[in-house]
Amino acid sequence: MKIVFTFQPKEEFVDDLTQQFPEVDFLFYKKIEEAESALPHADILVTMGEDLSERHIELSGKLKWIMVTSAGLEKMPFESIREKGILVTNARGIHKIPMAEFTFGLILQHAKQLQLVRKQEEEAVWSRRVPTSELHGATLMVLGAGAIGSEIARIGKAFNMETSGVNTTGNQSGHFDRMFTLQNFEEYLPHADYIVSVLPSTGETTYILQSNHFEAMKDTSVFINVGRGDLVEESVLLHAVRNKMIGHFYLDVFEQEPLASDHPFWREEGITVTPHLSSITKMYMPRAFDIFKKNLESYLNKSEELINVIDTERGY
Amino acid sequence: MKIVFTFQPKEEFVDDLTQQFPEVDFLFYKKIEEAESALPHADILVTMGEDLSERHIELSGKLKWIMVTSAGLEKMPFESIREKGILVTNARGIHKIPMAEFTFGLILQHAKQLQLVRKQEEEAVWSRRVPTSELHGATLMVLGAGAIGSEIARIGKAFNMETSGVNTTGNQSGHFDRMFTLQNFEEYLPHADYIVSVLPSTGETTYILQSNHFEAMKDTSVFINVGRGDLVEESVLLHAVRNKMIGHFYLDVFEQEPLASDHPFWREEGITVTPHLSSITKMYMPRAFDIFKKNLESYLNKSEELINVIDTERGY
Repeated sequence: MKIVFTFQPKEEFVDDLTQQFPEVDFLFYKKIEEAESALPHADILVTMGEDLSERHIELSGKLKWIMVTSAGLEKMPFESIREKGILVTNARGIHKIPMAEFTFGLILQHAKQLQLVRKQEEEAVWSRRVPTSELHGATLMVLGAGAIGSEIARIGKAFNMETSGVNTTGNQSGHFDRMFTLQNFEEYLPHADYIVSVLPSTGETTYILQSNHFEAMKDTSVFINVGRGDLVEESVLLHAVRNKMIGHFYLDVFEQEPLASDHPFWREEGITVTPHLSSITKMYMPRAFDIFKKNLESYLNKSEELINVIDTERGY
Repeated sequence: MKIVFTFQPKEEFVDDLTQQFPEVDFLFYKKIEEAESALPHADILVTMGEDLSERHIELSGKLKWIMVTSAGLEKMPFESIREKGILVTNARGIHKIPMAEFTFGLILQHAKQLQLVRKQEEEAVWSRRVPTSELHGATLMVLGAGAIGSEIARIGKAFNMETSGVNTTGNQSGHFDRMFTLQNFEEYLPHADYIVSVLPSTGETTYILQSNHFEAMKDTSVFINVGRGDLVEESVLLHAVRNKMIGHFYLDVFEQEPLASDHPFWREEGITVTPHLSSITKMYMPRAFDIFKKNLESYLNKSEELINVIDTERGY
């Protein structure tokens, strides 16, 4: 059994794996280009998720399982993977803790006006006339009601917020007081104080937010995008910001990352730009390896109970 | 029945009270000085809590109940109040929601390094090398385990933090994984990532935090004071900051407020100064009046079930 990594994990993870699975032959490469000669012998491939092409799948004649140590699957060559009947699992769920924490960092920064407070502090100004608000009783709408969205809603409920979720079916999901579909969520936008998107980039979600959605939102509302940048066209965003359609935009994801230093988003007062930080955590790799090790154990024991199996037809 | 207010509530509250209690004679004054002639006739006095002196109590010969629409009771002339057997209630609990939210605003600002992120943004710098951390699994110690402290611990548990509480008895209080007393909490300081004080100013708490406490804390730990400024002597604080004993200080309360514009705290990099904001909320008066109305109804019905009755001996 040969397992090929297309990245080099830290020593502690290498040691842990080789100790726990002595029967497995682990081959670590710094990048896919260096791994090419090993691909024909690989039973399992472990990748961070953005390096695989159709050619790599063609090269990997024995491949039965691809473990992606992230949640993003946009660049996966699913057609060839499906043709060859290769199993795909990912690290879905791994992002929910840091992303929910980061989201509430932004929500509280806004509600408590901590940027303004910071500015006052820099000028040694003691002013208690800060237009703060409470999360308690405020309305939170989460676009994307999977693992991450539910975790955001769970913390929202702890702050006594009203939570509504949006998914493809409108079926009930954890910690949401009410659900909407991608077709009908617009009707609830006038009630939302915080609109948070964690939607992945799929055919259904690209450019789904249009001007009419921002027009429907309260002029005090806050839009936070920690999902994918192609949820809204940049021109639509700029139009909404410059016409002060809502209270503030917090954007952590963009169509082109890194955001160019001359991009207009940086200079808009109504936009706070953060550099795709929401899922960054020191706990990332430990959690990804925990999922991988559980799955590897199941796989070696011929158990069917693998975590986070991807539907290669749908792509998520 | 005459009820004297030593402040002028907004019209909506006045209307609400006079409609709900038509049998009561409400007298509203802008400040205690203007209310003096009415004091001898007052059955009940409603105050924001910092204006009463012994002389006012002497003047109020018929007084049976003082409702304080805040939580701070430091300036109450308890000796004369006790002598006359006057009932005191306050708005305890009213602060817990905004204070817990504000505290987590600071905790998340620190954990997600949002001040640094903001600085990068001002310079249009896209850098994802931000030393963030997670609340998940971090250790939160709350000095003061009453209504406010428990609310902070409740939200801490929602973020999957380890919570420990400190009170006078060490008796279990809600949402704390473990409890300490003011005498023995020092032993747990080396384990705490976030130390939050919500302690009121009493004989037991004045200058209770000393250099040895800060020395005992982790050098990465964070101290947040949203209680009272006299918990730590300023010289002790400055010594701890300048010797980088801990990671950061967030101070919302001070011995002298407002903090003078030339005070050294403003300029210390290791200190974030906020202008006693934690309890500020638009919901303050609605919540205070809700408590007052419930108590007034009980009082008029001769019920004993008043909320937030103060022990005039202990002063809280």
